[in-house]
Amino acid sequence: MKNKVLRELLNNKGSFVSGQKLSRDLKVSRTAVWKYVNILKEEGYKIQSVSNKGYRLVEGPDPIMVDEIMDMLETEFVGRRIIYMQEVDSTNDYAKKIALDAEEGTIVVAEKQTGGKGRMGRRWISPPGTGIWMTLVLKPRLHPSKVYQITQATAVAVSKAIWETFRLKAGIKWPNDIIVNGRKICGILTEMSAEPDLVYYIVVGIGINVNTEEEDIPDEIRGKASSLKIELGRDVSRKELLVRTAQNIEKVYKDFIAEGFGSIVHDCNSLSVVLGREVEVVGGSRRCRGRALKIREDGVLLVETANGIEEILSGDVSVRSMEGYV
Amino acid sequence: MKNKVLRELLNNKGSFVSGQKLSRDLKVSRTAVWKYVNILKEEGYKIQSVSNKGYRLVEGPDPIMVDEIMDMLETEFVGRRIIYMQEVDSTNDYAKKIALDAEEGTIVVAEKQTGGKGRMGRRWISPPGTGIWMTLVLKPRLHPSKVYQITQATAVAVSKAIWETFRLKAGIKWPNDIIVNGRKICGILTEMSAEPDLVYYIVVGIGINVNTEEEDIPDEIRGKASSLKIELGRDVSRKELLVRTAQNIEKVYKDFIAEGFGSIVHDCNSLSVVLGREVEVVGGSRRCRGRALKIREDGVLLVETANGIEEILSGDVSVRSMEGYV
Repeated sequence: MKNKVLRELLNNKGSFVSGQKLSRDLKVSRTAVWKYVNILKEEGYKIQSVSNKGYRLVEGPDPIMVDEIMDMLETEFVGRRIIYMQEVDSTNDYAKKIALDAEEGTIVVAEKQTGGKGRMGRRWISPPGTGIWMTLVLKPRLHPSKVYQITQATAVAVSKAIWETFRLKAGIKWPNDIIVNGRKICGILTEMSAEPDLVYYIVVGIGINVNTEEEDIPDEIRGKASSLKIELGRDVSRKELLVRTAQNIEKVYKDFIAEGFGSIVHDCNSLSVVLGREVEVVGGSRRCRGRALKIREDGVLLVETANGIEEILSGDVSVRSMEGYV
Repeated sequence: MKNKVLRELLNNKGSFVSGQKLSRDLKVSRTAVWKYVNILKEEGYKIQSVSNKGYRLVEGPDPIMVDEIMDMLETEFVGRRIIYMQEVDSTNDYAKKIALDAEEGTIVVAEKQTGGKGRMGRRWISPPGTGIWMTLVLKPRLHPSKVYQITQATAVAVSKAIWETFRLKAGIKWPNDIIVNGRKICGILTEMSAEPDLVYYIVVGIGINVNTEEEDIPDEIRGKASSLKIELGRDVSRKELLVRTAQNIEKVYKDFIAEGFGSIVHDCNSLSVVLGREVEVVGGSRRCRGRALKIREDGVLLVETANGIEEILSGDVSVRSMEGYV
């Protein structure tokens, strides 16, 4: 109901809508309307209330309107269920709690994460209302040793969604970062629950910096991280990007399930910002330097080093002259 | 406190212990003593109460005495924390809920499972008090693709524990069943929570049929399943077996972490009941028949078929003339 009130105000942005009209159209009491307006104010919307005139939305954060998103979505299963929250510790952790009983394609999305996570237990900064902090539940019949391919498939989908929505080139830093103009604007964190040879479920966390301001970026990653707003020089809507992301994920995922990783590997290569560059890879106790050659049919990164060609299954990749690495 | 009352009765098994003495030694009221005795009765202990004499343990299920087990355990971390419950849905499911915050080596053990699980979502029958239904939490630095090796390592440890405790030959049906005289007496279910290239934790569920009676075994698996009591022809104690199992697991696991699966593969082969036999393997959509040759250095089962040597990574193995397979 709160979202319905918000939508009415958005549809009349800048003009007054009377409490009486809202009450009649939405079939709730005027006290209820007043209550929902107050909740919206607490969430950061600037709403003017004037006696005999009603309510007027002056400005507010770019809203994620779940029912509108669902109307827009042209998908079979991705996003057919959306769990939307103002605040959560981590959308991945929340998704893991509900995943066993959730339908495939369920999306958990929050305005704010208080304990957002990156790979290897790193922190992910998720200021309220400025990004898309979402997690998707998937249940493929897949061997755990192939789950890393889902990360790369998701990266392809996000990169395509950013291009379609903003005509902005977003490349992939193997395996799981999205890079615009040399800075990271999105990270992907895949987690699984599994038997040694059977995946129960996968949760794919996607964090996209959308309207993040330069000053919201913590000092230690400034210069390495960016947002769509910073790169485009204007405020952008999260709604369309979220919809296109979900649609691209469904398409890429269906191809992956039907035809395997081979269906994606061409995009992985053509969207990569790593290939042909001098890289340093740190994975586990190993460290190697060399020139990134290609992403193989199975998603493995091939790096030409002084000792020959190394097959990189996982690890952190630093690219020379990108994200502050010299 | 209930366990303390039980231990006093066990120490004086067959003789009366006065309520007054129990109350004084255990520093609780006589009403409390009476309450705990009633709980024990409900759990299946036969306890005689006679005015002016006190309580006498006539007979009872073989108790798992956690504090006694901890005294007996000569381990560094396996079983240093034991969570003991009368009843639980599944020790694996419980362990997964606490695993992230639990210390490595924590054991969850229950007298009864109401929803015990086998591999691939199968049911595991766990009648109260007759078996060891336990789950161990492990946190190795391990790639998810290697987790199946933990299952085989655990099978080696359980097989050795049964030999040490009862001088009974318990073989391993690759990868996760323990077989005595051609019938299954133990199953192992390994589950994990992980990133694509980093295990957060593993829970290893071990279900051993100890004092299960022939009539407790469901019709559909009769002839395939057995228990230590059935095979030995006498009641046996779960306590010593649990201790030896924990100790062997710690030893095998430490070797595995330090030296890799190569440290275990000799035992996997020598304890196998599969090698040299005609087997049928069903895994995913694949099915193959042939003669089991050996377990390779990495835990893969090699089967000689009409089409050459197949490498079996996972699957269900049926052995001709074992467990009712003809």
